[in-house]
Amino acid sequence: MTTNSFIILEKIFFTPGPAQLYPTVENHLLDALHNHLGSISHRGKQFQQIFAETTGNLRALLSIPNDFGIYFTGSATEIWEKSLASCVETSSFHFVNGSFSKKYYEFSKELGLSAHKSEAAMGEGFDISTIEIPTEVNAICCTQNETSTGVQMPVADIHALKDRYSDKLVFVDAVSSLPHPTFDWSKVDSVIFSVQKAFGMPAGLGVWIANQRTIEKAKELKGKGILKMPHHNLLTLVENGAKNETPATPNVLYIYLLGKIVGDMLKKGVETIRQETSTKANLLYNFCEKSDLFDTFVKNVAHRSETVIVANTKKPSSEIIDSLKKENIVMGSGYGSFKDTQVRIANFPAVSVGDVETLIEKLGNI
Amino acid sequence: MTTNSFIILEKIFFTPGPAQLYPTVENHLLDALHNHLGSISHRGKQFQQIFAETTGNLRALLSIPNDFGIYFTGSATEIWEKSLASCVETSSFHFVNGSFSKKYYEFSKELGLSAHKSEAAMGEGFDISTIEIPTEVNAICCTQNETSTGVQMPVADIHALKDRYSDKLVFVDAVSSLPHPTFDWSKVDSVIFSVQKAFGMPAGLGVWIANQRTIEKAKELKGKGILKMPHHNLLTLVENGAKNETPATPNVLYIYLLGKIVGDMLKKGVETIRQETSTKANLLYNFCEKSDLFDTFVKNVAHRSETVIVANTKKPSSEIIDSLKKENIVMGSGYGSFKDTQVRIANFPAVSVGDVETLIEKLGNI
Repeated sequence: MTTNSFIILEKIFFTPGPAQLYPTVENHLLDALHNHLGSISHRGKQFQQIFAETTGNLRALLSIPNDFGIYFTGSATEIWEKSLASCVETSSFHFVNGSFSKKYYEFSKELGLSAHKSEAAMGEGFDISTIEIPTEVNAICCTQNETSTGVQMPVADIHALKDRYSDKLVFVDAVSSLPHPTFDWSKVDSVIFSVQKAFGMPAGLGVWIANQRTIEKAKELKGKGILKMPHHNLLTLVENGAKNETPATPNVLYIYLLGKIVGDMLKKGVETIRQETSTKANLLYNFCEKSDLFDTFVKNVAHRSETVIVANTKKPSSEIIDSLKKENIVMGSGYGSFKDTQVRIANFPAVSVGDVETLIEKLGNI
Repeated sequence: MTTNSFIILEKIFFTPGPAQLYPTVENHLLDALHNHLGSISHRGKQFQQIFAETTGNLRALLSIPNDFGIYFTGSATEIWEKSLASCVETSSFHFVNGSFSKKYYEFSKELGLSAHKSEAAMGEGFDISTIEIPTEVNAICCTQNETSTGVQMPVADIHALKDRYSDKLVFVDAVSSLPHPTFDWSKVDSVIFSVQKAFGMPAGLGVWIANQRTIEKAKELKGKGILKMPHHNLLTLVENGAKNETPATPNVLYIYLLGKIVGDMLKKGVETIRQETSTKANLLYNFCEKSDLFDTFVKNVAHRSETVIVANTKKPSSEIIDSLKKENIVMGSGYGSFKDTQVRIANFPAVSVGDVETLIEKLGNI
């Protein structure tokens, strides 16, 4: 049963996560509650159908081949830990282009692995042709879209890494870009994302898309006694996923919700969504270039994220953010030490071209 | 703003988790959505206030002293892993009274710890006076309420363990009983629970209540280089919790929802809730004793859970469950190998005395 929202959602969020909710969230959540999905068993047929629908819809939206499994955790941060603990025997390599990729690197060190990195200055990306990855490295960890800096690693660069280092696993954090980037699935081994970014959901679910090579590596490490993480390690996810189930009681409601939102995206068409994302990104970057308020942070056009636009502000960012708040528009502040000198503008599918035009108009009036 | 549910929730769940939702869930979730809590930053004042309200309400409901911290994870299963990895240097001891306590024990082995157990036959509890816990053990792990078997460890037994082994940490899994048991907080070190049981919420959040001794032990293990788990280890939870925040983007909506439901429970009064739980448990056990359908699984009255009632069925349990389904009543099947020969009846605060009377009446008609 579909019910209509009876209250206008009057605020709009351009924050990079948690972010503006996809317009259909409330109706789907109400449907879920009215169908008692908050109470059903996660070991029954009804949940298995939900799991199958959500993974099936994601597979269709992102053209994920059948030899990749799709698994759910509490967050993408959790998958940083589980991917390293499940699949890295001795050493990981990290492209550090901001604060989140740095945390992934630090997770590796904390786990006692030999962690290597190539670190770009904040706001800069990589010339991957100049970067040599040590032989001992088992997994190359790329943050395709760095939510803290608005720096992206072009998908072509990630594919090129796989061409050069085909013996290594390539893990991609696409937390705040999917469904925007188009991966050649033969050139990535695992891709992870969070639902509270471009999928427009409340936070509380991470998604791990893993191929057979990733899974085989986990099996190998289990056999060697190296994989010792009991909860949500890749093998427990795979074993239960084969039955359309999860190792422990999952967030049933959000797995359902993700399936429905991806279903809505499928109806709209992923190409339309991607084109609109590019259109909106162009509008925002063009505005920043001309604006007296802003200065685009990422200078190299190829390294500019299309989903998280970061700009230096020519007056304290809080002044800009506060004046937009009065218009019921919520913008993101800079991350960490850039809090007061930058803004971050999320450009996710939940905001329309019209919304972005409104934002630009309001910014123009400041 | 409070909105009224406009659709009657016609089914009732006596399943032991996910379970019947607390009657106010839908209204609180709608309030949350209308107040944009699905989009707010988890690093801002609004979220910090939600965190403070939820932990404050839990503290009031369960009389938790101020030297205990209250932390949120994706599930209680996750806390099994994190509690062992954060606080156990070499060895844990597990009271195994069913399938979930056994998993906690197995987690310890998988982590490479020296895991000891005292294992009761299914449906039986422990005579703790006869059990000796080895000197090397750092933490005693008790499953106060075993959701698979309906066996409880009396709270007095847990307190007595602390009296005997005051040098060891006492960890209590009260996943499917809180807020029913009344702990002497000077005689437990950590208590964990899940929201999808007696708190009547959709699944997707675990709660870890940990005292300073638990936290000090984690600091000690960090100092020794033994604590290597980067995500949601106790120290990251404590460090962020001090700011009313979480280490990674949490399930903001569910933390809010938990605070509101606990607020509703506070209005009703925890003693009233506990008395009603005992009243309903008595009704159910008395019915089972007299019934031609059932035979109470747990023979020792002191070891009978008041929140999860398990009964052997005198005909295939699926027949009983199916005939109740026609009345829109959902009962739990037995767990694991008891699936076809037992039922599990959850007795959580979301079902009223009247609901239990209705269930008993319908069962009497079979």
